[in-house]
Amino acid sequence: MFSFEELTKQFAQRFNTRHFPGTVASLYEPAEYFLSMGGKRVRPVMCLMANELFGDIYPDAWHVADAIELFHNFTLIHDDIMDKATLRRGMQTVHAKYNEPTALLAGDVMMITSYECLSKINAPYLHKLMNIFNKTAKELCEGQQLDMDFEKRDNVTLEEYLHMITLKTSVLLAASLQMGAIIGGSGEGNQDLIYEFGKNLGIAFQVQDDYLDAFGDPQKFGKQPGGDILANKKTFLLIHALEVASASQKKELLGLISGNAPDKVAKTLQIFRDSKVDSWSKDLKDKYLDIALKHLDDIAVISSRKKPLQELAGFLVQREY
Amino acid sequence: MFSFEELTKQFAQRFNTRHFPGTVASLYEPAEYFLSMGGKRVRPVMCLMANELFGDIYPDAWHVADAIELFHNFTLIHDDIMDKATLRRGMQTVHAKYNEPTALLAGDVMMITSYECLSKINAPYLHKLMNIFNKTAKELCEGQQLDMDFEKRDNVTLEEYLHMITLKTSVLLAASLQMGAIIGGSGEGNQDLIYEFGKNLGIAFQVQDDYLDAFGDPQKFGKQPGGDILANKKTFLLIHALEVASASQKKELLGLISGNAPDKVAKTLQIFRDSKVDSWSKDLKDKYLDIALKHLDDIAVISSRKKPLQELAGFLVQREY
Repeated sequence: MFSFEELTKQFAQRFNTRHFPGTVASLYEPAEYFLSMGGKRVRPVMCLMANELFGDIYPDAWHVADAIELFHNFTLIHDDIMDKATLRRGMQTVHAKYNEPTALLAGDVMMITSYECLSKINAPYLHKLMNIFNKTAKELCEGQQLDMDFEKRDNVTLEEYLHMITLKTSVLLAASLQMGAIIGGSGEGNQDLIYEFGKNLGIAFQVQDDYLDAFGDPQKFGKQPGGDILANKKTFLLIHALEVASASQKKELLGLISGNAPDKVAKTLQIFRDSKVDSWSKDLKDKYLDIALKHLDDIAVISSRKKPLQELAGFLVQREY
Repeated sequence: MFSFEELTKQFAQRFNTRHFPGTVASLYEPAEYFLSMGGKRVRPVMCLMANELFGDIYPDAWHVADAIELFHNFTLIHDDIMDKATLRRGMQTVHAKYNEPTALLAGDVMMITSYECLSKINAPYLHKLMNIFNKTAKELCEGQQLDMDFEKRDNVTLEEYLHMITLKTSVLLAASLQMGAIIGGSGEGNQDLIYEFGKNLGIAFQVQDDYLDAFGDPQKFGKQPGGDILANKKTFLLIHALEVASASQKKELLGLISGNAPDKVAKTLQIFRDSKVDSWSKDLKDKYLDIALKHLDDIAVISSRKKPLQELAGFLVQREY
């Protein structure tokens, strides 16, 4: 069996090549440019790992891994257009470097290419995997739409936010694992368990992400905290703070959100601390991480095979920070 | 066998229903809105007709027809964003009625839904049809990109324009027929012939479209001629005129293109007439229509079965106007 790091290296070696024809260059170069920006390639590697949980990695798993990574990158290109983001991983986004129509079309052709990879897999799995892939793809769109809808609302509940995050982030992790498991020969019960492992791990990761954006060590995470606060983004922290804060704190928080005071970040963080949102969010992250690991435990394979996926969980979501 | 009109009616009855879930409404209502605007549904009906050329219509042909029409509508939603078009068929485009991010995402989810329809077909064809569908989908993106590239260029050759139009318009007609033929049980030779029939018919249709936009009878076609001229669009007529016009005519034409004189349309049409672009384009249309019909003739089935497709060609491309 391979470790998470080893499979990441193997996948990168395979994936870091041209994915598009030479012509029409004005369409395909922007798509290649975006892929060359790299990324952790977590989702495709999760697919490979889930395959290996049940048996040797089949060639089909590599095709599905390619499809997943291309689909993920398509969503990023289009999300960047929708969010008017000009930078990603420190580099220009596609629409910023080229133009919006080209970025839109480069995203489209990347989605089509992901289906091209998917259609390389063998007949016995093709229908089943396409159903999961399509369902997940639609859920991602739903999550992105809800995220945009929520930006215009002040009364988003924790339950609604959790639902949005699950669609936007978690289901692709979950489906990547499930598809790998299917190729590995897993039964239905284990497929459901690994799906739930991925879904809850994704939620834990997002809670951690929200926490670190507010309270993360700038030395350790390479960026100043408070980006979400400055952008008035809905996060687990803000939504919970609005639910538990006292009337006066809530009034202050709403005032901070609607304004651009120079001490906006500091004052918001103080309210978060005063209403114990920081420790609450650590507990919430641990809760979802535990649920995830419990589902992994319950999968009916010998426990030594689960080590790489446990490592992955530890890589994505830390107990302590 | 059914006529073109009869199959159009049958397809409309089937297709004119909800294609998306109720939630997330802010994503799916815009998608439903666009589909409710209607359309001639030529491509899916061509798929059904090509199936029927070789045998009774199989249930799979209806799934492919749905996939084709959804994919076509996805391209229209995204093209409207790229072209900043606010009206289509007299109604607001999706990004004009809602907003760009929602239109982008509604297009994305429509493309995914087209793959959902495609994945309903039976295993023996699935790989083959997905390969054709994916190849064609990429070609459509290439055609749209070339169209945008050409807008910025003054030296587009007829050959380049023909290539662009083939990708943007013709290959989807051709592939719709080919996919229907495959489901109908056609052999490879007949598949190639029906593909060429559709490809050349599509080119003839586009030549006619360019001609009618310049010289069409406003009473008959319901719009003032000269829309392409006013928008400085590359057309068969303009490109050929620039190739055959005298030096002084060419200079005048380039001057007209770069300006917005009140008599721009009239003067351009006069140059078109003087350089015999009008009769040239009628001949060109007839040439491609003849090539298309020759390929249909060559298909190895009894000629009575070809009648509906001959009717369709006559509906799309007229000999006289």
